[in-house]
Amino acid sequence: MIEIERKFLVTSNAFKAEAFKQTKIVQGFLNTDKARTVRVRLKGEEGFITVKGQSTKNGLERFEWEKPIEKTDAEALLKLCEAGVIDKIRYEIKMNQHTFEVDEFFGANAGLIIAEVELSYPTEVISKPLWLGKEVTGEVKYYNSQLSKKPYKTWGI
Amino acid sequence: MIEIERKFLVTSNAFKAEAFKQTKIVQGFLNTDKARTVRVRLKGEEGFITVKGQSTKNGLERFEWEKPIEKTDAEALLKLCEAGVIDKIRYEIKMNQHTFEVDEFFGANAGLIIAEVELSYPTEVISKPLWLGKEVTGEVKYYNSQLSKKPYKTWGI
Repeated sequence: MIEIERKFLVTSNAFKAEAFKQTKIVQGFLNTDKARTVRVRLKGEEGFITVKGQSTKNGLERFEWEKPIEKTDAEALLKLCEAGVIDKIRYEIKMNQHTFEVDEFFGANAGLIIAEVELSYPTEVISKPLWLGKEVTGEVKYYNSQLSKKPYKTWGI
Repeated sequence: MIEIERKFLVTSNAFKAEAFKQTKIVQGFLNTDKARTVRVRLKGEEGFITVKGQSTKNGLERFEWEKPIEKTDAEALLKLCEAGVIDKIRYEIKMNQHTFEVDEFFGANAGLIIAEVELSYPTEVISKPLWLGKEVTGEVKYYNSQLSKKPYKTWGI
């Protein structure tokens, strides 16, 4: 129930050719509070409800609880979510023993591409693909819950 | 997914002798916003996550979605909830075709007893038990989400 994750910006579209899977994701938030984020997600034909807690000081570890739900339930719950539903395609790329999940955002977050990789323990070494850019682990503004309130396209304004 | 409910105060303890079931309930909120309330509940040995939407103008109807979850998951999620966890015993009382759920509150809400009855349609007639008092359907201060923030014992202050 504690997830250890590192997060990076992505510097090119080269990751697309390496992906073994891509899935459309639509998600909204029933709460965007960092201490008790509640997310509703439609991932392809599957629905999920997810609760996340506060992350640790280094931003690496965060409580995460997820439950699969009916697609129709997810659709009904998305209507209750705060404004700022997030629309993205997730690409999955294998790199040795790890899987990078690369999210290409659309709508108000178009232009943003973020890669995440889950670790088994905080100091685990990862092989970095060539398209991997600056690490943004723990930077709150890159949380999807924050992107729904303050989307990428508004950052320069 | 739309619940039709009427809510009443309770004027005496006589309901206890009529109950066919009583269950301890501990519940907290991941969001107390009336438009997207997220509740975590431990009901005896069962766990639940519940999402409620805004109620209609007359306060009778409200979107409600509920999913059973593991007891241990409910316990972990309760730790993430806002301050003001609610502690109560629910008594269930049959009255003709209806079941009254009577909640006796403890802790910061001690002294408060509320009865709820679910209807099949808004104008359905109910038989009122002798211990049933003033109707408080739609009165937001009696929502459990509000009682967790502004408990009964603080109302007179």
